[in-house]
Amino acid sequence: MSTSGSGIRRLLVANRGEIAVRILRAAKALDIETVLACSEADQDSLAARQADAVVVIGPARADRSYLNIEALLKALRDSGADAVHPGYGFLAENAAFADAVEAAGAVFVGPSGDIIRRMGDKAEARRTAQAAGVPVVPGSASEPADIEAAIAAAETVGYPLLIKAAAGGGGRGIRLARDAAELAREFPVAQREAQTAFGSGALYLERFIERARHIEVQILGDGQRAVHLFERECSLQRRRQKLLEEAPSPVLSAAQRETLCASAVRLAERLGYRGAGTLEYLFDEASGEFFFIEMNTRIQVEHPVSEMVTGIDLVQAMLRIAGGEPLGLRQEDIHLQGAAIELRLNAEDPARNFFPSPGTVEQLAWPQGPGIRVDSHLYAGYRVPPYYDSLLAKLIAHGADRGEALARARQALDELRLSGMATTASLHRRLLDEPWVIEARFDTGTLEHWLAEEISA
Amino acid sequence: MSTSGSGIRRLLVANRGEIAVRILRAAKALDIETVLACSEADQDSLAARQADAVVVIGPARADRSYLNIEALLKALRDSGADAVHPGYGFLAENAAFADAVEAAGAVFVGPSGDIIRRMGDKAEARRTAQAAGVPVVPGSASEPADIEAAIAAAETVGYPLLIKAAAGGGGRGIRLARDAAELAREFPVAQREAQTAFGSGALYLERFIERARHIEVQILGDGQRAVHLFERECSLQRRRQKLLEEAPSPVLSAAQRETLCASAVRLAERLGYRGAGTLEYLFDEASGEFFFIEMNTRIQVEHPVSEMVTGIDLVQAMLRIAGGEPLGLRQEDIHLQGAAIELRLNAEDPARNFFPSPGTVEQLAWPQGPGIRVDSHLYAGYRVPPYYDSLLAKLIAHGADRGEALARARQALDELRLSGMATTASLHRRLLDEPWVIEARFDTGTLEHWLAEEISA
Repeated sequence: MSTSGSGIRRLLVANRGEIAVRILRAAKALDIETVLACSEADQDSLAARQADAVVVIGPARADRSYLNIEALLKALRDSGADAVHPGYGFLAENAAFADAVEAAGAVFVGPSGDIIRRMGDKAEARRTAQAAGVPVVPGSASEPADIEAAIAAAETVGYPLLIKAAAGGGGRGIRLARDAAELAREFPVAQREAQTAFGSGALYLERFIERARHIEVQILGDGQRAVHLFERECSLQRRRQKLLEEAPSPVLSAAQRETLCASAVRLAERLGYRGAGTLEYLFDEASGEFFFIEMNTRIQVEHPVSEMVTGIDLVQAMLRIAGGEPLGLRQEDIHLQGAAIELRLNAEDPARNFFPSPGTVEQLAWPQGPGIRVDSHLYAGYRVPPYYDSLLAKLIAHGADRGEALARARQALDELRLSGMATTASLHRRLLDEPWVIEARFDTGTLEHWLAEEISA
Repeated sequence: MSTSGSGIRRLLVANRGEIAVRILRAAKALDIETVLACSEADQDSLAARQADAVVVIGPARADRSYLNIEALLKALRDSGADAVHPGYGFLAENAAFADAVEAAGAVFVGPSGDIIRRMGDKAEARRTAQAAGVPVVPGSASEPADIEAAIAAAETVGYPLLIKAAAGGGGRGIRLARDAAELAREFPVAQREAQTAFGSGALYLERFIERARHIEVQILGDGQRAVHLFERECSLQRRRQKLLEEAPSPVLSAAQRETLCASAVRLAERLGYRGAGTLEYLFDEASGEFFFIEMNTRIQVEHPVSEMVTGIDLVQAMLRIAGGEPLGLRQEDIHLQGAAIELRLNAEDPARNFFPSPGTVEQLAWPQGPGIRVDSHLYAGYRVPPYYDSLLAKLIAHGADRGEALARARQALDELRLSGMATTASLHRRLLDEPWVIEARFDTGTLEHWLAEEISA
């Protein structure tokens, strides 16, 4: 089963770092030839050493290499590859790139440009979710023109709510209102801010989910049918960057899990989704409600925890589906097997406000043993280039239950020997001993608060 | 569940190499303090670096350190440990050692000395198996005195059969007879040989199982109840040393698996077995018959493949049971999850008839990624001492099915960078491409034949 049937013969890997290594492994396991498209700064990377062939697509700067569609299309033509895996980040959710790859006669390993476009438009994604019966964060249907209209609309949205600029983004022009009086006071302020910042005073209202958890569902589809691989809990974030992820969520009941995951499959099937995708939700632990936020139409950094608890190789599955195979999996064959935790090891110094700390890997010994997986592009002597993101490695610990996964994660950190740069390993080691981590009492704001207290202390 | 409840507080690890590291990991995951008993030659080992404390028990020579019961009992007293894990080899199946540890008031992590003794006596083990209704290799009930008696006994034993010296061992005095005529011819020859070699001409007959597979069942018991963790196929052997093991066996039907594994549980429960144990069988693929050979009352080298396909940590389970916990597992909760293969990496040169090649580890980069586990005691710069066995590492590959496990194993070998000594890695890489390995067409003699042809070629 594993070494046959894929229609892809030669794969261009259009990414770098650990995910490039990860994609190479999946391709090799399927007997697919590999070509790595890399920047001049990555010619000595582990991925470059492991690929069957390497094409240099441009200088270190990502906008001239990993984000350069023309250079990648040229690499595709020159290498004779018949498919492109975009990984995550860079062009992974660029609909124009997906279209261009297909127009060049090759396979884009992911959904069509149309689906990427549709789910990339947040309003359109929200409408699609609603049409599939997937709950979204309650918001105003139209843009209230004045305070009275806003207060009327707030009746259905519910408090607390956020007043947001319709043309906005990046957090600007957002105001919080906990009741009608606050709404009446903040609405005109938000209107002025929006007008100034975005040239339009149009506003809409959205329920503010307090103490929400970030829970996401992994799905796989073949264009006809979709299955889910359960959910991941990713509430431990710093500046919206996930730092520690786990599967399954430690707080969902079996019924909640079933409802949540079924909603994701419903949306994926309605889309005719092809490939691996993730539906992100906010989960209100107090009420048990969940709300769709957005869909990522690509493989995610934290995909290994889902692989560990299901035994399914997501990247191999992506390559098979892209190669034309129907989804071989039935939902009833996918079972939760224990628990898994991923720790992101970044080249950042937690003691210096996560200041980036690229450098040269000196001593390097990875943890090993039962339940331990490491996805990394490091090797002893490797110089981490300063141009790209700071992810050095993902330490993944799997156990028969969450307690065993946590114990193995602690032990893995204790075994790790990595010198040459500051990393987030020490922070993770502290986190794993915190009662609120052990007892899974957290929401998306908890880690930031803890860090603020730990740093000020 | 995983960090509580074990009655062991401080564990003495009475072993070395990869299994010492393996035991340390299990103990740490259970929050048990660790003390390593090691020889002078192993003071700079990875286990010595990872243990909470180290006691040097004697010089390099195993008979003065790892086999020295007095020295180990002193280490037990001096360290204040309340339990001893013997690993495999050395004193792991020494009943006197188990008794001495218990007499010293500590816990021997394994069955009682009585059970070790009982299963260490091959004839007694055979009788116990028969009493539990577990088939054994058909043999003569008594020792035939002459050719006529032998031919009569052969009627129930069946041909082909082996004529063996009752006082024998080590393969001496064994003759093969395919029919009554051969038996009549060989019997007196065997009698003379046995008399010369062992001082007794007494012989017995045993059915010769041709083209047998070596299949073994992993069990876990708490003294009251036992469960099995399915079987391992270990037919790929050289000089009775396993080189590549896998779980499950690729040739058993579901019904055969059920019958085989149930027989192992029956025997373990009849014994009141406590701890991890393995029942070894010969499996006659042509007839579908299986025959119990012997029981190993300890953890085995190849235990990780069973861990991979069940998600159960066998060494943690041993420690829990030894600490007084009842077996938490029910048979119906143990499921086969895919397939796993273990490759033994030995410091031996396959091109020079497996000549031992200890040395100093220079370059070292282990394979990583989904489904890959490495159990090893090596580190860059480590000098492999020449005094002990040649096992350097176990590369274990797990996949959704056997094909995926094989593909990942190939890829793992391709990723491996280990210089400083000759190893069996290159041999494994060739084996994994052999059609008879891929199609699982082999018995316990196949690897030897293939090696003979490959070496002569």
